[in-house]
Amino acid sequence: MPALNTDLYELTMAAGYFAAGKTQEIATFELLIRRLPEHRNFLIAAGLEQAVEYLGGLAFGKQELDYLRSLPQFHNASPDFFNCLADLRFTGDLFAVPEGTPIFANEPIAIVRAPLIEAQLIETYLLSTFAFQTMIASKAARCVIASEGRPIVEFGSRRAHGPEAGILAGRAAYLAGCAGTSNTEAGMRFGIPVFGTAAHSWTMSFPSEEESFRALQELLGDTTVFLLDTYDTIEGARLAARLGHPIWGVRLDSGDLVALSREVRRILDNAGLQDAKIFATNDLNEHRITELVRSGAPFDAFGVGTQLATSADAPALGAVYKLVELKRGNTLQYAAKFSDEKSTLPGAKQIYRSRDRDVVALYSECNSDFHGTPLVRPVINNGELVEPLPPLAKSREDAQTAIAALPKELLSLTEQTSYPVEISPRLVQLAETLRQELQPAR
Amino acid sequence: MPALNTDLYELTMAAGYFAAGKTQEIATFELLIRRLPEHRNFLIAAGLEQAVEYLGGLAFGKQELDYLRSLPQFHNASPDFFNCLADLRFTGDLFAVPEGTPIFANEPIAIVRAPLIEAQLIETYLLSTFAFQTMIASKAARCVIASEGRPIVEFGSRRAHGPEAGILAGRAAYLAGCAGTSNTEAGMRFGIPVFGTAAHSWTMSFPSEEESFRALQELLGDTTVFLLDTYDTIEGARLAARLGHPIWGVRLDSGDLVALSREVRRILDNAGLQDAKIFATNDLNEHRITELVRSGAPFDAFGVGTQLATSADAPALGAVYKLVELKRGNTLQYAAKFSDEKSTLPGAKQIYRSRDRDVVALYSECNSDFHGTPLVRPVINNGELVEPLPPLAKSREDAQTAIAALPKELLSLTEQTSYPVEISPRLVQLAETLRQELQPAR
Repeated sequence: MPALNTDLYELTMAAGYFAAGKTQEIATFELLIRRLPEHRNFLIAAGLEQAVEYLGGLAFGKQELDYLRSLPQFHNASPDFFNCLADLRFTGDLFAVPEGTPIFANEPIAIVRAPLIEAQLIETYLLSTFAFQTMIASKAARCVIASEGRPIVEFGSRRAHGPEAGILAGRAAYLAGCAGTSNTEAGMRFGIPVFGTAAHSWTMSFPSEEESFRALQELLGDTTVFLLDTYDTIEGARLAARLGHPIWGVRLDSGDLVALSREVRRILDNAGLQDAKIFATNDLNEHRITELVRSGAPFDAFGVGTQLATSADAPALGAVYKLVELKRGNTLQYAAKFSDEKSTLPGAKQIYRSRDRDVVALYSECNSDFHGTPLVRPVINNGELVEPLPPLAKSREDAQTAIAALPKELLSLTEQTSYPVEISPRLVQLAETLRQELQPAR
Repeated sequence: MPALNTDLYELTMAAGYFAAGKTQEIATFELLIRRLPEHRNFLIAAGLEQAVEYLGGLAFGKQELDYLRSLPQFHNASPDFFNCLADLRFTGDLFAVPEGTPIFANEPIAIVRAPLIEAQLIETYLLSTFAFQTMIASKAARCVIASEGRPIVEFGSRRAHGPEAGILAGRAAYLAGCAGTSNTEAGMRFGIPVFGTAAHSWTMSFPSEEESFRALQELLGDTTVFLLDTYDTIEGARLAARLGHPIWGVRLDSGDLVALSREVRRILDNAGLQDAKIFATNDLNEHRITELVRSGAPFDAFGVGTQLATSADAPALGAVYKLVELKRGNTLQYAAKFSDEKSTLPGAKQIYRSRDRDVVALYSECNSDFHGTPLVRPVINNGELVEPLPPLAKSREDAQTAIAALPKELLSLTEQTSYPVEISPRLVQLAETLRQELQPAR
């Protein structure tokens, strides 16, 4: 029952909305990233599938309700409030940009329109779900750009923020163009190709490296990857060369990867193993991959772990979930926050993307006023999925196409470039009107 | 069935060990952090309870086994291997330092001794479980030190790496001395005090700030915390002062927190609300808390979110899981890795802690040779829990005591100091002997 996996204040506010008779009010919240981290020119939207699953299963069990009743914060809450929670399901609407879509700061990744209590309760879970996968997908896209066509495998489960984060990191990395993951559960659950080599402990558990290599080869056949550096990389390569086929390739995991790869390539080639691939790992990230690729050294593929599965240089996105509309009966009230640091724009929005810029407009504005493709689509309507989500592999293809269509300067891994995101004149006007209205509202 | 939540290579190695007839070999692996991140003078061990749960439930279901059979990496694996997996449970031993214990680089957090296949399979899950919570607990300890006795509440679920990471971050933060968490699920599951205030959207959903404050107060009584900055912090404080009791306090979430806290304090005091507390948030971390505390401004408590729940300045620990012993029949073989970058010491180890240093010795060395308390304890013996784990609140108390007993210079949040961790003479000797033996073993 994931409904309790939320910040306490979502639940106390729900109790307050219930007490204040606001159960019939319909709120619209927008989920967006306020600022891009320093080394991100774009983000890749991700996490929608898990958000949809969560909303589909949203419910409180008896244990959860008993726990809430026991908290001092709910001593004044009426029994009817807990009955309301016991019956609660997600009955609202969800709009979102498709997974794999490049997005920018202040563009809505998702929009929720639902009875106020429902819309409020789901904030915490939705934020962590969308922001985490979006963060990992965005990091993965950079690694994929750096590798210039060489496959990247996500290898970071052991360093991810707990076991579930490892699974989701594998998913997000694949969505953004990685070839696969080492996380077997992610492979089964999401149909992602899974890859692996062998550990140093494998080699060490045999009386000799040769016995360990032979045993691996016997089992794995042409998916065999020899980990060369348990004792000495070059000696390991000579052993691999002696053993010959079947082999997929070898893995370098320490030392001067560029120099070693050249020497290992020579050893393998001289043994007639031109088809054996060189797979490199060892705390890689997009910058290190760029160096390795630019060296011209013969790397065929890369495994990226910690830095990818934790987005180590930017381990959090400033994702927020802001009230933009509130409907009481027939009255639609726009909402926004105007403090300098943390301001938001009112109203549910659409993003129109053309070749060189995005326009963020009110969702209600007429499409034909804007050139460009609308990115935000209806996903859930009155609690029901509008249509099945695309398979992950399809979203991955779409992501590759969309990234390739971005202005070239955005693909730089070192130069910071901001993409033009314009605000429609009507939206600017609405915000200004609202700002003036809110002054006397205090 | 979490058994599949592991790197593929753990499973292919398991198949290889099975094929090589190594199912009766007993392996000992050690889980440790190779290096402390730059701004950590110590770590707080955490995650043991989740590791124990995982080991207790370790099993493969039919769906998992069918998936594995479908993978090319297992085409040569025998049907008996899958039968072996179907019957697999954790039957080995787990040793660990108690949760909440300060630890240092290269000290074992946990030691696994089990049949080789079991010990290998659990590597990925154990690494992410211990390392993530240890990382968060270590960050939380720094925030608690900075706050000099003022309560800290963990508020970061929305920025954590997915929904499960939010729950576990709340747990780890509490273990290390935080007063509680905003994560309600963590509250229920682990008996952690939960706290919350209200969102800006709460205020905005009412026709006026006053109506929103009144509604909150009516519901929450003396647990009421008014969020002051939806429109204007000082005006918000005047409103809170006008409304008076019941109130727990107010929350400042933007602007110049030091100046605002002084002005807000004055406003509250003048209204007779000397007992109303000032709770500060807004992208805090241990350094910012130090500034706020040193300013002498009247802060009573802090909420720390993103920076704590992601350990943003050090979002991964270099946790490793290394083979240190392998027993074949009656032959005990020590294992170690001697490459310069990634060397490990052989043998299962014990940590002896005295007032000013630790000694890492072989587990088999006689206790009385060392002054100090042994930290590594048996937790699981032949698959059975040795004794119930201490309640989380007890581990939290122990952590506070242990942190207070550390040399004062380790508690610095800015100066890097390394604690003396010595290696016992017998362990040094064993490593040297093994290094010489391994040369001809290639």
